[in-house]
Amino acid sequence: MFATMLPFAVGVDLGGTNLRVAVVDEQGHMLEKLITPVAELRTSERVIARMCDHIQQLRKRYESTGRLHGIGVSIPGIIDLDTGVLRECPNLPGWYDYPARQEIEARLGTRVILENDANAAAMGEFWLGAAREYDSTCMLTLGTGVGGGIIIKGALWHGMTGMAGEPGHATVDPTGPLCGCGNHGCLEQFSGAAAVVRSAREAAAAGEAPTLQSAIERDPHFTARTVYELAMKGDTPSQKIFERSGRALGTAIASMINMLNLPIYIIGGGGSGGWDAFAPSMFEEVEQRSFVYRATTQPGANQKARPRTRITRAMLGSDAGIFGAARLPMLPEEVYEHSLHQGTPAAITVFKEHSN
Amino acid sequence: MFATMLPFAVGVDLGGTNLRVAVVDEQGHMLEKLITPVAELRTSERVIARMCDHIQQLRKRYESTGRLHGIGVSIPGIIDLDTGVLRECPNLPGWYDYPARQEIEARLGTRVILENDANAAAMGEFWLGAAREYDSTCMLTLGTGVGGGIIIKGALWHGMTGMAGEPGHATVDPTGPLCGCGNHGCLEQFSGAAAVVRSAREAAAAGEAPTLQSAIERDPHFTARTVYELAMKGDTPSQKIFERSGRALGTAIASMINMLNLPIYIIGGGGSGGWDAFAPSMFEEVEQRSFVYRATTQPGANQKARPRTRITRAMLGSDAGIFGAARLPMLPEEVYEHSLHQGTPAAITVFKEHSN
Repeated sequence: MFATMLPFAVGVDLGGTNLRVAVVDEQGHMLEKLITPVAELRTSERVIARMCDHIQQLRKRYESTGRLHGIGVSIPGIIDLDTGVLRECPNLPGWYDYPARQEIEARLGTRVILENDANAAAMGEFWLGAAREYDSTCMLTLGTGVGGGIIIKGALWHGMTGMAGEPGHATVDPTGPLCGCGNHGCLEQFSGAAAVVRSAREAAAAGEAPTLQSAIERDPHFTARTVYELAMKGDTPSQKIFERSGRALGTAIASMINMLNLPIYIIGGGGSGGWDAFAPSMFEEVEQRSFVYRATTQPGANQKARPRTRITRAMLGSDAGIFGAARLPMLPEEVYEHSLHQGTPAAITVFKEHSN
Repeated sequence: MFATMLPFAVGVDLGGTNLRVAVVDEQGHMLEKLITPVAELRTSERVIARMCDHIQQLRKRYESTGRLHGIGVSIPGIIDLDTGVLRECPNLPGWYDYPARQEIEARLGTRVILENDANAAAMGEFWLGAAREYDSTCMLTLGTGVGGGIIIKGALWHGMTGMAGEPGHATVDPTGPLCGCGNHGCLEQFSGAAAVVRSAREAAAAGEAPTLQSAIERDPHFTARTVYELAMKGDTPSQKIFERSGRALGTAIASMINMLNLPIYIIGGGGSGGWDAFAPSMFEEVEQRSFVYRATTQPGANQKARPRTRITRAMLGSDAGIFGAARLPMLPEEVYEHSLHQGTPAAITVFKEHSN
């Protein structure tokens, strides 16, 4: 056990695979992390019970050495930030309309902050990772789909109803494939892992990709990772799939840069492991499509030093969410604000789609 | 002359056609407005001299009745907000690299706030117009091209280098027409007045639009307004041009809604006069492409009252910019901040493209 004198927080990351509960001090040191495979726990009640048990364990152990800021919980689902009810958790079956915050708070006897996983990851990278030297950022998380989180001047931007930060559902090709959201040509239809796998199966079925085809035959549950590995080994159809993914990312990010002129855009999530395969076409597209990007990356006529727009990989890997969740209770209340609309605050229903 | 006891500001709107200088009190009453056609003045020196002369006249006249908050100037060009130098003013030939703020301040002996015209218009609509009951908004100004301004929690969002708020250069069709900015398929290539005129000429040249063709033959300088009038009279090719313009607007706004979840999007500028011709297809497209829009406009299962996403016409017409310019010196300094990036503030070069 690590002794600390610094105030700390407990950060929880409930994922589709693991429940992770950690102690993080206010300088960003992770002092201890408890991991439980979610499959072992089965019901939502047992997940919450284990989560609270681990929170209490860690809290007792560290409260003798430092003050507890509070508890932040990252959840991969649509959260009503007002009531703390989970509306939908595609990766956690049976959590539909589940009053998560109430259940957790009742067991702990204290307040907790619930946050969507993509937002929590953005906060983690903002605090300790790729955007730690910036005051604003947008993070795109490449998972099964494409999620995201926006931080403006140190605070998560939830938007009017908590649904802000859905770059995965920006239109990059108005006549592109139909998305689950009802739109055609969403970014996630090109750059999410599901889209990569779908494109690989399509190319194989069309007889255009013999190497992909035999990979699929060997492993019917094959993943985007296999497509990435084949691309890196020089398989042209696999390379084309990642090139298209990069172009879609570049198109979406170029529009974001022209709209928001943020200093840094971060690509995270498991799919960011494919960086080498998609980044070249992504940068090519951004360069061509965003005059704001060019103006902030090419040397100016007067050679004056300028802030540069950066597009970069996430740095904290799968710990981004847990660091971000732990950070939330450390922020002053006016920074961590979640009902932004002045109109009818009592009636605000807050949704945030999961990041997959 | 109107006697006031309220503090007031002088707002200036320098446009391609008129120089307008007005007194606006802090409740948003315009007390007096002086107008000079820019063509009469010819040189930038004479424009600045007249502007300062009118500012001084109004200042003297109203300072006996109320306190002067300050002076705000809206300019249709790329402004370096740090130095107050105009980088480019496409509508004001000869203003390239012109130290406007320095020239104005030297003549007045007092500080002035310079702002891009689309941002000033957004601030006007935010203060007194379509967004007056909201804390955040995005305004799109339909002119020759498409400009814009974003307000987040009461403050203009300039972004890292002052280039934020360029919805006109969001990609709505990756293989669409080449834009002056170097991108293909920018929103302004479908929804700006220049694009409407170009589409009309193309349809006429292709022999697909006899009514448009004879309108062009009658008036070689014919404008988007003629296309609008023909559309409203039932001319199918003209209707198609506005339908396409509306679809492009809807595609861009849908992505914005999914990214930012703002409460209200305002369509302003001269082109918003074509609302009846483009709005139906715009709303259709937003409805289909943005699940966030649907979630915030359709009644929910629980029938709970919810804040609605609104897309609406601007209310202040050509006075939006003058009201917005007058508002800027009334805002507390921490709200009117223009160097947002914490990195190298001394070196920040701030650009903002004109809104046309």
